[in-house]
Amino acid sequence: MAKFNPAGIFSREEKRFIGEWSELLAFPSISADPAHAPDCRSCAKWLVSHLDKIGFPAKLLETSGHPVVFAERKGKPGKPVVLFYGHYDVQPVDPIDEWQTPPFEPVIRNGRVYARGAEDDKGQFFAIIKAMEILVSSDKLDCTVKIIIEGEEEYRSLGISESLEKWQEMLKADILMLCDTNMAAPDTPTIIMGLRGIISLEIALTGPRHDLHSGMHGGVAPNPAAGMAKLVASLHNPDGSIAVPGMYDSVAEPSEREKKLANASAPDEATYMTAIGVPPVAGEKRFSPAERLGFRPSIDINGIHSGYGGPGMKTVISSRAIAKITSRLVPGQDPKFCLRAIIQHLIKNTPTGLNLSVVEQSIGGPGFKLNPDSALVKKAEDVLRQMSGKEPVFMWEGASVPIVASLAETAGAEPLLIGFGLDEDRIHAPNESYSINQFRMGFIYGCTMLSAL
Amino acid sequence: MAKFNPAGIFSREEKRFIGEWSELLAFPSISADPAHAPDCRSCAKWLVSHLDKIGFPAKLLETSGHPVVFAERKGKPGKPVVLFYGHYDVQPVDPIDEWQTPPFEPVIRNGRVYARGAEDDKGQFFAIIKAMEILVSSDKLDCTVKIIIEGEEEYRSLGISESLEKWQEMLKADILMLCDTNMAAPDTPTIIMGLRGIISLEIALTGPRHDLHSGMHGGVAPNPAAGMAKLVASLHNPDGSIAVPGMYDSVAEPSEREKKLANASAPDEATYMTAIGVPPVAGEKRFSPAERLGFRPSIDINGIHSGYGGPGMKTVISSRAIAKITSRLVPGQDPKFCLRAIIQHLIKNTPTGLNLSVVEQSIGGPGFKLNPDSALVKKAEDVLRQMSGKEPVFMWEGASVPIVASLAETAGAEPLLIGFGLDEDRIHAPNESYSINQFRMGFIYGCTMLSAL
Repeated sequence: MAKFNPAGIFSREEKRFIGEWSELLAFPSISADPAHAPDCRSCAKWLVSHLDKIGFPAKLLETSGHPVVFAERKGKPGKPVVLFYGHYDVQPVDPIDEWQTPPFEPVIRNGRVYARGAEDDKGQFFAIIKAMEILVSSDKLDCTVKIIIEGEEEYRSLGISESLEKWQEMLKADILMLCDTNMAAPDTPTIIMGLRGIISLEIALTGPRHDLHSGMHGGVAPNPAAGMAKLVASLHNPDGSIAVPGMYDSVAEPSEREKKLANASAPDEATYMTAIGVPPVAGEKRFSPAERLGFRPSIDINGIHSGYGGPGMKTVISSRAIAKITSRLVPGQDPKFCLRAIIQHLIKNTPTGLNLSVVEQSIGGPGFKLNPDSALVKKAEDVLRQMSGKEPVFMWEGASVPIVASLAETAGAEPLLIGFGLDEDRIHAPNESYSINQFRMGFIYGCTMLSAL
Repeated sequence: MAKFNPAGIFSREEKRFIGEWSELLAFPSISADPAHAPDCRSCAKWLVSHLDKIGFPAKLLETSGHPVVFAERKGKPGKPVVLFYGHYDVQPVDPIDEWQTPPFEPVIRNGRVYARGAEDDKGQFFAIIKAMEILVSSDKLDCTVKIIIEGEEEYRSLGISESLEKWQEMLKADILMLCDTNMAAPDTPTIIMGLRGIISLEIALTGPRHDLHSGMHGGVAPNPAAGMAKLVASLHNPDGSIAVPGMYDSVAEPSEREKKLANASAPDEATYMTAIGVPPVAGEKRFSPAERLGFRPSIDINGIHSGYGGPGMKTVISSRAIAKITSRLVPGQDPKFCLRAIIQHLIKNTPTGLNLSVVEQSIGGPGFKLNPDSALVKKAEDVLRQMSGKEPVFMWEGASVPIVASLAETAGAEPLLIGFGLDEDRIHAPNESYSINQFRMGFIYGCTMLSAL
């Protein structure tokens, strides 16, 4: 029997793979825009038929939102069950003017496929699907594979969240595999060891019945703009730590080993400054930037608006101020408790004379982290080391994929998060792209990892 | 000869007066918005032609900004010279959605004219102009009248300020008459004894080179929205006093008589709460609301804007935040010193990692107060007592008419500030209005006062 050679297979199949990937990218499956609901459904149907064709009996699962694609292929007894998660929905395309070519007409330029979703997540998950196809046709897939591809990850994953309990039996697995994350640097194999959770709220402060003349009332009437500034500022202590009582109570302290691994994969301060334009100086001083992102909660002001913002001046005391706030959570923190704690703090610190209202609140999901010493992680390290010739790095990401924690819990599975994204892919932005080389890495990783289980 | 009866004349002329007033209100003469410069000029030209027509030879004076309207009608020798000041420019109209009818299409509802500028200052000054017209046609105007109507009061009065020295001879007068202020309460004749000065600035905080993902950078990258909240909050102490060093250094303490008169004309807390919707609890606790408005400086946040403000959430760290800030000044305070002190404070309190820039700064003018025992004030008291049958009250207003102090000094004139505005007029806010009754009071006051001089 010839040696199984994924790289060689990729070279032979590359053209066909890119053709199919492009078919998938042509669906404008924007989940946040109700006008694109039919496109989401068409995309899901295409996936069902594609998975069926390559040996993974598939079906469409209805939810309160866009449908979920589910497929299952039984493996050999005694072999692990892998649940592979992806999402076929994509972000909106605004500002559309900035796209060099239409977002749903994929084109190749300089070895990269340009389209909305080219990376996130169609390119990433489809590379693994192609690996699975090749493993089946090469008779190399021994484990049982379940595939779940949802259509609301970019919106709020509501349909799948609401269905988890009902689907528990169907989703049971040993390993929850995802391909929707980044590499620490180009060609650096990277295992994601944690993601932060997220809660969000929008608040409003109201006061005067209508906008007031700031001369006739300045220094007398409570000012919602000034009050919101004060209220929002009260969320942090002068040293950069969070001032909301209870927010750190159950935060799990990272081990020295975790800190060391996290810091090893992080850019130094000068590199960060060059890339982002600011030094990484927000947050708690007693942790490094990588430690803060990976192991510490944050409260982030995503928007604050009150009063006049046009050209020149307007001497007004606005009747209203709003702020949009999210908080990133880490393992140990209960999202419900934290949301309540933040709201309690805001109520307590509302300036005299003004009224606080919570316009909107939502719980994305909790943070989680994995054990860098588990057998599964060791195996992934081996696979990545072999295929790249490089030592894999560990990353605790500051961002959230809200469904992962609850999906892993429902399935009773250990998550395995390895992806091949890079900042240059510009996900969520105009001219999103994914290089054929990154797709190829995903394919080889999929072939090697799944056949090694 | 029949008794001169301004009230009777008003009844006869009311329809025509409102028609002409509405013509004046139809000009969108928003001084702060460069796009409306042509509208400012058209409005000024309309005034020149109108004043010419009613017996006040008028001309347009060019300045660095919007043109100034000037008219002069010689009176009898030995009679005082009255310089009457008004402004034809108006505030911006945002939020435009909250207007029940378009701001520059004046309509009458329930005896009130609704339009931007209906009161401030087109309605107020035009009532006096109509009084002057009637006095001329009734041969009752003995004093020399000079009229100056500028187009930048709502912005920064720059054009007129820069020209004062050049125009000194032309502006010489005994009395500087203004009709741009409020009554202490409906139908309560009110003499303004002081106005606060004003300085203003717009600041920006910049940080990240572009908007960042708040998960991937939250708690690490300095956040301009959070930084601006903190910076703006630093302008006040927890007890409501101003935290900028030096701001109180040279504030003149009011006399017991001034405090007593100021408090006598002020609404009580319940009345304020009913009218405005909030209790008068901002500012320094050791002064009453009327004392704070009349004799104490304030720093007011007129606008704060950063990040996402649309529907739903966007997990973004914005690259920029802006704030618009004004400070009201009282006698003793030097506007230049105070502006510098505020900027120094802001520089000192700029959060690490962010860059502060002063986008715009301007000095409106100093605060001033008048002598409640002068002969002119006594005469005005008599006139107001006669026309209303009520005892006039004295008010030290929190608002500013920045040019008054320097205009009075240039003209060598004693200011006389009597106006008929009320909070319910909602100046600077959506649905500004001025009742026909208030306009009528202004007219009768103008007729009586000017014929009594």
